Amino acid sequence: MPEKMLAAMKLRKAVGAEMAEIPLPRPKADEVLLKIKACSICGTDKHIYNWDNWAQNRIKPPLVFGHECCGEVMEVGPAVKSIKVGDYITAETHIPCLHCFQCRTGNMHLCQNLSILGVDVDGIFAEYAVVPEVCCWKNDTALPVEIACIQEPFGNAVYTVMESNVGAKKVAVIGDGPTGAFACGVARAVGAVKIYNLGMIPFNLEICRKMGADVSVNVVEEKNYREKILDETNGGVDVVMDMAGNKNAVSDGFAILRRTGTFTAFGIAPAPFEFDMAQNIVFKGARVIGINGRKMFDTWYQLRNLLDSGKVDIRPVISHKFPFTDFLKAFETAISTTTPSAKVVLTM
Amino acid sequence: MPEKMLAAMKLRKAVGAEMAEIPLPRPKADEVLLKIKACSICGTDKHIYNWDNWAQNRIKPPLVFGHECCGEVMEVGPAVKSIKVGDYITAETHIPCLHCFQCRTGNMHLCQNLSILGVDVDGIFAEYAVVPEVCCWKNDTALPVEIACIQEPFGNAVYTVMESNVGAKKVAVIGDGPTGAFACGVARAVGAVKIYNLGMIPFNLEICRKMGADVSVNVVEEKNYREKILDETNGGVDVVMDMAGNKNAVSDGFAILRRTGTFTAFGIAPAPFEFDMAQNIVFKGARVIGINGRKMFDTWYQLRNLLDSGKVDIRPVISHKFPFTDFLKAFETAISTTTPSAKVVLTM
Amino acid sequence: MPEKMLAAMKLRKAVGAEMAEIPLPRPKADEVLLKIKACSICGTDKHIYNWDNWAQNRIKPPLVFGHECCGEVMEVGPAVKSIKVGDYITAETHIPCLHCFQCRTGNMHLCQNLSILGVDVDGIFAEYAVVPEVCCWKNDTALPVEIACIQEPFGNAVYTVMESNVGAKKVAVIGDGPTGAFACGVARAVGAVKIYNLGMIPFNLEICRKMGADVSVNVVEEKNYREKILDETNGGVDVVMDMAGNKNAVSDGFAILRRTGTFTAFGIAPAPFEFDMAQNIVFKGARVIGINGRKMFDTWYQLRNLLDSGKVDIRPVISHKFPFTDFLKAFETAISTTTPSAKVVLTM
Amino acid sequence: MPEKMLAAMKLRKAVGAEMAEIPLPRPKADEVLLKIKACSICGTDKHIYNWDNWAQNRIKPPLVFGHECCGEVMEVGPAVKSIKVGDYITAETHIPCLHCFQCRTGNMHLCQNLSILGVDVDGIFAEYAVVPEVCCWKNDTALPVEIACIQEPFGNAVYTVMESNVGAKKVAVIGDGPTGAFACGVARAVGAVKIYNLGMIPFNLEICRKMGADVSVNVVEEKNYREKILDETNGGVDVVMDMAGNKNAVSDGFAILRRTGTFTAFGIAPAPFEFDMAQNIVFKGARVIGINGRKMFDTWYQLRNLLDSGKVDIRPVISHKFPFTDFLKAFETAISTTTPSAKVVLTM
Repeated sequence: MPEKMLAAMKLRKAVGAEMAEIPLPRPKADEVLLKIKACSICGTDKHIYNWDNWAQNRIKPPLVFGHECCGEVMEVGPAVKSIKVGDYITAETHIPCLHCFQCRTGNMHLCQNLSILGVDVDGIFAEYAVVPEVCCWKNDTALPVEIACIQEPFGNAVYTVMESNVGAKKVAVIGDGPTGAFACGVARAVGAVKIYNLGMIPFNLEICRKMGADVSVNVVEEKNYREKILDETNGGVDVVMDMAGNKNAVSDGFAILRRTGTFTAFGIAPAPFEFDMAQNIVFKGARVIGINGRKMFDTWYQLRNLLDSGKVDIRPVISHKFPFTDFLKAFETAISTTTPSAKVVLTM
Repeated sequence: MPEKMLAAMKLRKAVGAEMAEIPLPRPKADEVLLKIKACSICGTDKHIYNWDNWAQNRIKPPLVFGHECCGEVMEVGPAVKSIKVGDYITAETHIPCLHCFQCRTGNMHLCQNLSILGVDVDGIFAEYAVVPEVCCWKNDTALPVEIACIQEPFGNAVYTVMESNVGAKKVAVIGDGPTGAFACGVARAVGAVKIYNLGMIPFNLEICRKMGADVSVNVVEEKNYREKILDETNGGVDVVMDMAGNKNAVSDGFAILRRTGTFTAFGIAPAPFEFDMAQNIVFKGARVIGINGRKMFDTWYQLRNLLDSGKVDIRPVISHKFPFTDFLKAFETAISTTTPSAKVVLTM
Repeated sequence: MPEKMLAAMKLRKAVGAEMAEIPLPRPKADEVLLKIKACSICGTDKHIYNWDNWAQNRIKPPLVFGHECCGEVMEVGPAVKSIKVGDYITAETHIPCLHCFQCRTGNMHLCQNLSILGVDVDGIFAEYAVVPEVCCWKNDTALPVEIACIQEPFGNAVYTVMESNVGAKKVAVIGDGPTGAFACGVARAVGAVKIYNLGMIPFNLEICRKMGADVSVNVVEEKNYREKILDETNGGVDVVMDMAGNKNAVSDGFAILRRTGTFTAFGIAPAPFEFDMAQNIVFKGARVIGINGRKMFDTWYQLRNLLDSGKVDIRPVISHKFPFTDFLKAFETAISTTTPSAKVVLTM
Repeated sequence: MPEKMLAAMKLRKAVGAEMAEIPLPRPKADEVLLKIKACSICGTDKHIYNWDNWAQNRIKPPLVFGHECCGEVMEVGPAVKSIKVGDYITAETHIPCLHCFQCRTGNMHLCQNLSILGVDVDGIFAEYAVVPEVCCWKNDTALPVEIACIQEPFGNAVYTVMESNVGAKKVAVIGDGPTGAFACGVARAVGAVKIYNLGMIPFNLEICRKMGADVSVNVVEEKNYREKILDETNGGVDVVMDMAGNKNAVSDGFAILRRTGTFTAFGIAPAPFEFDMAQNIVFKGARVIGINGRKMFDTWYQLRNLLDSGKVDIRPVISHKFPFTDFLKAFETAISTTTPSAKVVLTM
């Protein structure tokens, strides 16, 4: 193994990122060393790059950022039992403590002492990375690397849809980004009979349509779409899955949700907003389910089943591929406000 | 039977109510005529009396208002099958259409064409009242009338607590009014191991304590109660039941709710307010359950079981009793801002 | 309307059935009169025809038997509110009392005073039939009559599969009769990633395959299929849906069910049999769900959604069609032990 | 620490057990060494002692048997993170592999590679024992040792009752042994409104009564108890918890279970028996839940809450206490067919 590696880093408390050559990390007793095969860019990475409020409060440079990846195991720590050199791994990116109440009751993805790969500890925008054994998900060797690395964000959508119980139901997916597109695919696969997709960008709405949306609504251009949906569904969809999170998205979502319906909240609003809990939740007898991360590892078994069986094909969500050496160019594509994109993948 | 009866009515579009003598109502084919034995005053009745915005938009005088009651069946319509003259009835006050999606899927209390006794149709602050057969709940003749008539609001608390799954858990009940007090009693009966009760009025906090609250918090007087609760519970209570609904109550509730906890929303805020959905629901992986009315009639079987077995004694929640002829005096007591009260019951 | 009608009847306490001309039935206050458009033959009808032990204990000739049907409303009783003359109806065939604990808690299909159309009261193998309003399901006029009439048995499969929570899971459907075939179709539609179908008749296994089974196992001919399934699934399927009910079916089902799996029991064994509750249920931490009838009317809304959206096409399950005047010939086909059949439909 | 310790051992493939002096065990990297403070005798230990069929197939002498215990940590392996020397521990006795499907989806108590303390590996009837870190449950130092050591079997009852959802319901606990007695206590604490307890031994029925049973039925002496229960409950109890497992217990249980009720199966029958799945499960729309072990560690948090709050006092279930040096005498008491006993506890 080489002594040094190329890594995309947040070196300064300012907008931007830099490529740097740094020493390879060393796995601790319960960690493995991965040679990264592919990685992809998440919204979180954009916050870090853009150095927004959240990033300023959370990130401590210097940091190798990035968390969506797959790779080959090059070395394992002495306490590692279930993973061996040569295994083909995708990283679950929530690192649990294993000992708190949440970890010991089936919710380690919401660990009370959670740290996140590429946020709280060095991540995977690099040629090599270390990952704890508990976060290793073993892939079949036949799985293409660009699919393997986006299983983590795909898992967010799988978790959201599986908690929403959409079989034989009419649903709305709010948001047209990668997670919205994944959610359309999963909802179609597990039996939603009609999928309304609300978004703002024609390029992305089209990807969601390819993934399974039956009706695409461009909320910037269309009017009266709430009334139209309420009318077609005789009082509202059974389930709303909100992958956008902002005030308008949430407002649209509850407006088109029927009485006793389910609103599943994955999207993150940048700030609090005015909300009518009485009308939206109480009088409707509605349920709201907050989703963060992925169930470890219920969601991963589900996503494997969906991919292996061909019930969901997630390739349409990959809009761009770059070699890792073009990382900065890839990142500019991902954050461009003029060129639309979905999932941007880098391969080694 | 007499030709006329005494009734408490909303005769004008203005603050107040009046006693009037009016003809007895006549049951339709699927209705029964009740001779009222006892009735009680609900927050909804106060809105109607006070002629606030909600009342101005919803209520069409002249109207006999009131909905919490019990009585004896004097006459049954020709299509009535399960109720007979002489039966001792408490009225479920949500009148369902029986034919919509909600009615046909186990949620008739959230009927899409719902009307409410004493709100949309003439109610029960009167010597006689008509009630649809489907809303009749038959009581054991031994049940005291003042208990029988408050089963309906008690049912709100039973529904709230039973949906919240509190067994072996630490919970908070927010609000110290009658429904909060009932909720403390039910939570204690079905196994909550610690009940924090947050309220504002010493008289009412004391009733909640009698009903089962382990820790009473007067949010007007105490400071740092959030931190104290978070500390004692190692990160928050498992379940919050909000019977108050206003911004501060909701804010307190989510602040003291642990990750992956359940927030059950029964209280009604008079207006929308700023809410942090990302922090409160998404990052926590929390669940929110909206509660309106009572399950028809799952909740009623549960409340009968709780009362019959002596697991809950709801008498402490009755703070005042009046004869029905003193209705206006009773109402003044119920809405007084100087004299505290809980449930005010009128007997015939 | 005519005064007399043709009906298929059980006139004597013996094997067989007869066609007879009898007076048209008259709807009671809460009933409707249907002109039957199509009907189909159920296993229950075969028991009645064959006059087996169950039939001898339950059936009181003379009786118009049959319960799966659709028809046009010709007349409504005076208390009927939601149905009008001309409506196109499929009958739910469980007639609830509406007043018992089960009826009042969302389980009227398991009413404590249940009677069944064509079993306990005159049924629908006739030109006209009466059905209570509460059992009427209104169809879209575009729905073909042969599809409309088999919605009731299709509903059994929809209920079974929806309770089994099969999304993203590997499942087994045991039994290759019409309900097994329907279950394969529903399981595929709501996201089962692999469907094993165990049966005994090549003709029927092929129908199940058309409906969605991925792997067909002829248990008469194949050996070691249990081991093969256990091996392919790494320890067993997630869900078994037993539509057969006999000892071998149940034994197969638990043998191929993984730990913490779900076994959904719809099939009816003619007699008790030896069962290993410790190995099958306790040590596995398994769940068993008994299914009888259809949820009234949750299941009907689900099946409408599945049919309307085209997610399930149930036409392959109809193996034979006859005019109603050939009823006896149709019945011989349905009970033939030499000519295989699935659903046999009669049209008027 | 001493070099040798006293242990109760299964040394030969025959009935009985022997006290022996053996070297102290050494903890592996992820294990801790406990100085045992108290231990108690389980039904499993009796099978091992009696050398019955199950024991002959499973147990490989020489073996230190026993699994219910508490102790103080004397030494921790180098990979242990959450436990330190001096901690006061109760052992969860199901040792999971941590890497199989069950372990990774919240069911490590049903691990596909499970081994059990004192059955598959050396147990705790000894002065010292080693336990994996993952099986350590840290107690408050104030918890008496005889309570701490029986938390494991108490946990079986907690798991059974919590899965059975008994709040505001009428229930039956079948079996009057220690787990039945614990179940009565938990059911009472979490809101069962009426608890029928079926058993055979007056001494044990009385303990169950002290724990919370409302009605004790001695099935050996009483007749028509099924009819009486069906009558008093208007058609059967809502929930049956079977802690006995034999054919008669199961038969009683389903006979007194209402339609759509829940049957929770914890008891283990020594052999298969004739069972009427159609009548018991299918026609009733019943649910059956298999229970084995305890949820790791949801159940432990629940049992701590129940004990700490005083909602359940489990001391009445301890019928006998002995010093560990009297182990063989204690064991004779536990297996005596003439002297009744409940939980037999040994202290060091």
